[in-house]
Amino acid sequence: MAGNKCVVYVEPGKVKVENIEYPRLELKEQHRKCNHGVILRVIATNICGSDQHMVRGRTTAHKGQTLGHEITGEVIEVGRDVEFIKVGDLVSVPFNIACGRCRMCKAGNTHVCLNVNPERPGAAYGYVDMGGWVGGQAEYAMVPYADWNLLKFPDKEQAMEKMKDLTMLSDIFPTGYHGAVSAGVTTGSTVYVAGAGPVGLACAASCQLLGAAVVIVGDMNPERLAQAKSFGCETVDLRKNADLPDMIAQIVGEPVVDAAIDCVGFEARGHGKDAAEAPATVLNDIMAITRVDGRLGIPGLYVTGDPGGIDENAKTGQLGVNLGLGWAKALSFTTGQTPVMRYHRQLMMAILNDKIQIAKAVNATVIPLDKAPQGYKDFDKGVAKKFILDPHGLIK
Amino acid sequence: MAGNKCVVYVEPGKVKVENIEYPRLELKEQHRKCNHGVILRVIATNICGSDQHMVRGRTTAHKGQTLGHEITGEVIEVGRDVEFIKVGDLVSVPFNIACGRCRMCKAGNTHVCLNVNPERPGAAYGYVDMGGWVGGQAEYAMVPYADWNLLKFPDKEQAMEKMKDLTMLSDIFPTGYHGAVSAGVTTGSTVYVAGAGPVGLACAASCQLLGAAVVIVGDMNPERLAQAKSFGCETVDLRKNADLPDMIAQIVGEPVVDAAIDCVGFEARGHGKDAAEAPATVLNDIMAITRVDGRLGIPGLYVTGDPGGIDENAKTGQLGVNLGLGWAKALSFTTGQTPVMRYHRQLMMAILNDKIQIAKAVNATVIPLDKAPQGYKDFDKGVAKKFILDPHGLIK
Amino acid sequence: MAGNKCVVYVEPGKVKVENIEYPRLELKEQHRKCNHGVILRVIATNICGSDQHMVRGRTTAHKGQTLGHEITGEVIEVGRDVEFIKVGDLVSVPFNIACGRCRMCKAGNTHVCLNVNPERPGAAYGYVDMGGWVGGQAEYAMVPYADWNLLKFPDKEQAMEKMKDLTMLSDIFPTGYHGAVSAGVTTGSTVYVAGAGPVGLACAASCQLLGAAVVIVGDMNPERLAQAKSFGCETVDLRKNADLPDMIAQIVGEPVVDAAIDCVGFEARGHGKDAAEAPATVLNDIMAITRVDGRLGIPGLYVTGDPGGIDENAKTGQLGVNLGLGWAKALSFTTGQTPVMRYHRQLMMAILNDKIQIAKAVNATVIPLDKAPQGYKDFDKGVAKKFILDPHGLIK
Amino acid sequence: MAGNKCVVYVEPGKVKVENIEYPRLELKEQHRKCNHGVILRVIATNICGSDQHMVRGRTTAHKGQTLGHEITGEVIEVGRDVEFIKVGDLVSVPFNIACGRCRMCKAGNTHVCLNVNPERPGAAYGYVDMGGWVGGQAEYAMVPYADWNLLKFPDKEQAMEKMKDLTMLSDIFPTGYHGAVSAGVTTGSTVYVAGAGPVGLACAASCQLLGAAVVIVGDMNPERLAQAKSFGCETVDLRKNADLPDMIAQIVGEPVVDAAIDCVGFEARGHGKDAAEAPATVLNDIMAITRVDGRLGIPGLYVTGDPGGIDENAKTGQLGVNLGLGWAKALSFTTGQTPVMRYHRQLMMAILNDKIQIAKAVNATVIPLDKAPQGYKDFDKGVAKKFILDPHGLIK
Repeated sequence: MAGNKCVVYVEPGKVKVENIEYPRLELKEQHRKCNHGVILRVIATNICGSDQHMVRGRTTAHKGQTLGHEITGEVIEVGRDVEFIKVGDLVSVPFNIACGRCRMCKAGNTHVCLNVNPERPGAAYGYVDMGGWVGGQAEYAMVPYADWNLLKFPDKEQAMEKMKDLTMLSDIFPTGYHGAVSAGVTTGSTVYVAGAGPVGLACAASCQLLGAAVVIVGDMNPERLAQAKSFGCETVDLRKNADLPDMIAQIVGEPVVDAAIDCVGFEARGHGKDAAEAPATVLNDIMAITRVDGRLGIPGLYVTGDPGGIDENAKTGQLGVNLGLGWAKALSFTTGQTPVMRYHRQLMMAILNDKIQIAKAVNATVIPLDKAPQGYKDFDKGVAKKFILDPHGLIK
Repeated sequence: MAGNKCVVYVEPGKVKVENIEYPRLELKEQHRKCNHGVILRVIATNICGSDQHMVRGRTTAHKGQTLGHEITGEVIEVGRDVEFIKVGDLVSVPFNIACGRCRMCKAGNTHVCLNVNPERPGAAYGYVDMGGWVGGQAEYAMVPYADWNLLKFPDKEQAMEKMKDLTMLSDIFPTGYHGAVSAGVTTGSTVYVAGAGPVGLACAASCQLLGAAVVIVGDMNPERLAQAKSFGCETVDLRKNADLPDMIAQIVGEPVVDAAIDCVGFEARGHGKDAAEAPATVLNDIMAITRVDGRLGIPGLYVTGDPGGIDENAKTGQLGVNLGLGWAKALSFTTGQTPVMRYHRQLMMAILNDKIQIAKAVNATVIPLDKAPQGYKDFDKGVAKKFILDPHGLIK
Repeated sequence: MAGNKCVVYVEPGKVKVENIEYPRLELKEQHRKCNHGVILRVIATNICGSDQHMVRGRTTAHKGQTLGHEITGEVIEVGRDVEFIKVGDLVSVPFNIACGRCRMCKAGNTHVCLNVNPERPGAAYGYVDMGGWVGGQAEYAMVPYADWNLLKFPDKEQAMEKMKDLTMLSDIFPTGYHGAVSAGVTTGSTVYVAGAGPVGLACAASCQLLGAAVVIVGDMNPERLAQAKSFGCETVDLRKNADLPDMIAQIVGEPVVDAAIDCVGFEARGHGKDAAEAPATVLNDIMAITRVDGRLGIPGLYVTGDPGGIDENAKTGQLGVNLGLGWAKALSFTTGQTPVMRYHRQLMMAILNDKIQIAKAVNATVIPLDKAPQGYKDFDKGVAKKFILDPHGLIK
Repeated sequence: MAGNKCVVYVEPGKVKVENIEYPRLELKEQHRKCNHGVILRVIATNICGSDQHMVRGRTTAHKGQTLGHEITGEVIEVGRDVEFIKVGDLVSVPFNIACGRCRMCKAGNTHVCLNVNPERPGAAYGYVDMGGWVGGQAEYAMVPYADWNLLKFPDKEQAMEKMKDLTMLSDIFPTGYHGAVSAGVTTGSTVYVAGAGPVGLACAASCQLLGAAVVIVGDMNPERLAQAKSFGCETVDLRKNADLPDMIAQIVGEPVVDAAIDCVGFEARGHGKDAAEAPATVLNDIMAITRVDGRLGIPGLYVTGDPGGIDENAKTGQLGVNLGLGWAKALSFTTGQTPVMRYHRQLMMAILNDKIQIAKAVNATVIPLDKAPQGYKDFDKGVAKKFILDPHGLIK
């Protein structure tokens, strides 16, 4: 059997494309058979902001960690227990791995499946502390519990045409959408989205899809803000020394919005031109500018262990949150990873029927698998692009 | 016109009963007419844990601040614009004052009414920074927007019989219930309630009413824990040096519960016998012992300004929250005051039909208005009693 | 005091514009003072399909019944109990009259307010059996409980510019939206809307606003179907003898949709070119073509008394419903009038921020008040227009 | 391989216990392998009211139809693809068979699973038109998709002690609870439950568990009404010629309740002593006595084909529903089978922690498998008992 080229972490700031073992229907690390799994020829697999946390050395990932949890592919082999997914199906893979048989999966909480990670609930492909599953920034990938996890595209040819949009279903589109939904964004809402990286942009586009009246995106990166503007968002430039509530008021006529979403997470910085890292900044910002009784969606990642944290508290994930303010305003908070399966079918329908141009919103940019190291570098520098790796040169 | 005896704050540790002006249909401080209001003969008015924050000097309350926001009474005068409430009605007063005409009230968010407090959304009787409305630990009280705010008891005689239960509808029963509801407590839940003061006990009783399978109450006060035990709760004694998850596991067989409620708030202490104040302790505790994808109800009060806070951050309401842990577990948080109106009718029905013994659960204890100063003192010492003031000697 | 020109019902098929009394702050029929009310100069007031039921003689309306429940206007007088609405405000009036003080209003159920109609819960302006309130297809109108009922537009000049859209907030836009929401329409849904009258078209546009992937509108009127097509809907022509599930399948690839809405009501007809009235047709249709576990929104009006009903059962509102089929498919049904207040603010925001072109969708057509009789006739014939009466010639 | 005694339908009015084939891991009728299935030694299996529809000849069931869909048992063999359920586990089987892999299962709608019945969504054991799965009123039974479908009891010994309660988890307890939940029953509700058969009684007990203030049960069978009274319900005797709203008013002081549940279904009768079958009676009743904006739960079975229907319409499931009344009151309706999996875990917790005495409420009565024919007869006569068959003599 052939090998399998895959992106792996080398050291802080460095990844490479390496030949790893061709996938088998098993989870090697746990000596666990996966007859419920399938092997995919990977058609599209994206670089994610959360990969960057590993590559920047902000996690406990070791050398050799395989990368990639945003996977779309064609089924080329099915395990004996797979009943409904067939060879030849073109499918989207939710980044969360879920068994479809535990209490959490039965309740739709596939982001905290109890059976796929011996360390804690929840697993993902190619991620530190997420169960040891092999990464999917590769030519081939194994997906366990395939009947449960996979979303089959109804028309293969149509799907290949829209691959740059559909590949966003594995993570950032549902993640941005979940952030918006958990913040209560609906018809006529005014919204603030913190962060104009790919998740922030996907969230802003989701807010529009949900019927928001005004979507404001805040960031320090002018290129990314321009990207947000390109599809109809308002923007606030956080490099300015202006007060955030004032900037909001200039746009919507009052210093608050109905809903806000944190698409930044723990590597947040303070405001102003030379702002240093200040991990609770975004959270405290969005509490300040959300209307009373509002809900905050927090898809941005916060971690329990951050070796590069700014102080002892930050290193264990303890942050200085303005809880008094949040309580006085009667705010609610939703944190955690996104249960992709809850949303991917409906978002697929929106893409297939041209209700959203998600690839355009995040500036999807296709590069070959071999160029992944350059993609990681460019992305880390803050280009306003979402990189799609194309291992077999099949994306149009 | 006669005077009106009322409890007022004097200085840290001290309240007294003073003769204040008989109520008029106006909000004097704001020169605002209240033709939509009524005057009540107060039948029952309770001392609340949140009054203690003022009396302990943990707020910016000034000398002379009138006290009391838990009011039940008989209507003895109605304003010209009151249409449905009549003289003679026996009514429960939600502690939150609401106009019934603003965007928040229309959405049922009476805890953050926009028209009753020039400082910020939300108001209450007899409380610092809550709009300047006169306190109700008094013989007589004025209630504005009476048609909107008041809950009329269907049968006056029956209501007088159950006054010790019904008086809990003005605050702690809905507050405890809201905590439970916002934590997702439902049939079969295992629940941890932090704090065995009156709100914690009301919350525990609410969890039982909601069908919880197991309700565990944690506190450091043995008398209050005994009170929790008296109506079927399990308890954990936080003076012990044992680990909270371990103590939970001994009761339910696993170190987590389905739902948890913080009924303590910002004056929380650490664990162990001589624990000092540590304002984020309860929050961090309940994150640790709640199942993944769980929801945390936080009716316990957190403030934006605490002159007695343990450090500079605490003084402004900024606390060290284990957000990384909460995020990894995909927890949700609901904070803020309780919109009493959302719940009081159904809870009244539960009381009137003997589905709950809320007075017994919180150990309701009736004392004359004149004995209020002693009640405040005893309550501050931690007696397991909820004091009901009886200004006219009418409670059986 | 000046008079007030108003549209009144004369006899089946006939309305006229008559001079009635200038409005006062009272409900004459009930000898009830309305100091909580305001007088409006009516800026826009629309002819509604439900008015047609009266005019066609399908209700018990008597000669002289004033008409009109879709009202937008400028406040020119305020009652003494009105606190927040001011003279000069430009406001939208929900067609349901509500007190803002009863159990139903407190729960947001303004469509079944308990205090505004002695006959049954719920009231409206200018409608038989709906409380005796004077109709608003007039120069001037009185709105009770003004602080509660009215939605003030934030910018008067901007609102005058968008009057043809904003006037739809008083009824058909919220009604169509409520139908969609109660059918569970959301991002990516496939939807069938029965009826291409103004409510059907408003519903279809609402489905698009809610992110539906495909919106199919069914009717027998080619002009109205063309109108639906004009803003991106798919259509099915019910004059054809084709099977509805087949026609659906040709559009979405399967004979079912995710959600369906009945925007026709009790004057429904069977299928095919010469179909006779068959009041349960639409209901049975939408049960047949909705996916299992689906929800049906039923904003279309069904009545308890229909003098023109096709048989004795229909005359009392008893219809032959395929309940066995609905049960086997585990469907849910939501009926009743729309609580406009639950939606009008957010829909206003969507209009003001150009997220929807509702006037264009329903083909809003402005005519002078004097031309109302012609408007009623044209509308009854089935023109694909929504008539806006312009009593003072102020609409651009 | 040994045989397997099982209850089978013979002809209208007659069942017998017959030796059928010992179960294999396959669905013979469909030539479908079930390596995902397990074989159970059946510990408890109940006679259900819906079995009676078949036995009374009110369905298209043929001679030889195996019966029984309420199954609790011990796992004695597991298929090769079963990963988490183990030999020796004591488990409850939801009556709905579900694949855990289709769109409906992923959304928690296991009552309309798409992969277990070639005829229509949804399947059950031992039921006509429900997929051809073998009945479980037997010594042994095969359960497919075992990891997905089964609920394991945490403690085997404890579960054997409470078997008479736990056996209700397979159908009637969740079904009654679902009826209550879908009717919006909550703390303080006044409720009317139509029907005092086992599902009606389970529903009434569920309403109490949900905190209802008053639960009224209506039936014509005095023995069953007495059973309802035995655990604290109010009752109305429908043999009386009194008006239902009047009887309700005598209990709760008004002619309406907050919520109502139809636990009767299509074999309903009119009111009064000698009432004939009238299939829409219960539905029209509960519309009449439910408060405006109320929700009706309809777990009672309605069918698409009833050979014994009272007229041509009834034979196809078309009933004369007072839709005009329902619409005027803005009622909502939830129909269909119950997705047992959505509720069984939490209801198990309530049983194990003594929050409900469900066996006592329904008067659970254990009989040997061989006595099933007598059980069917007695049940058809209307005894107030729920029969549990005990194939191996293991129930205490």
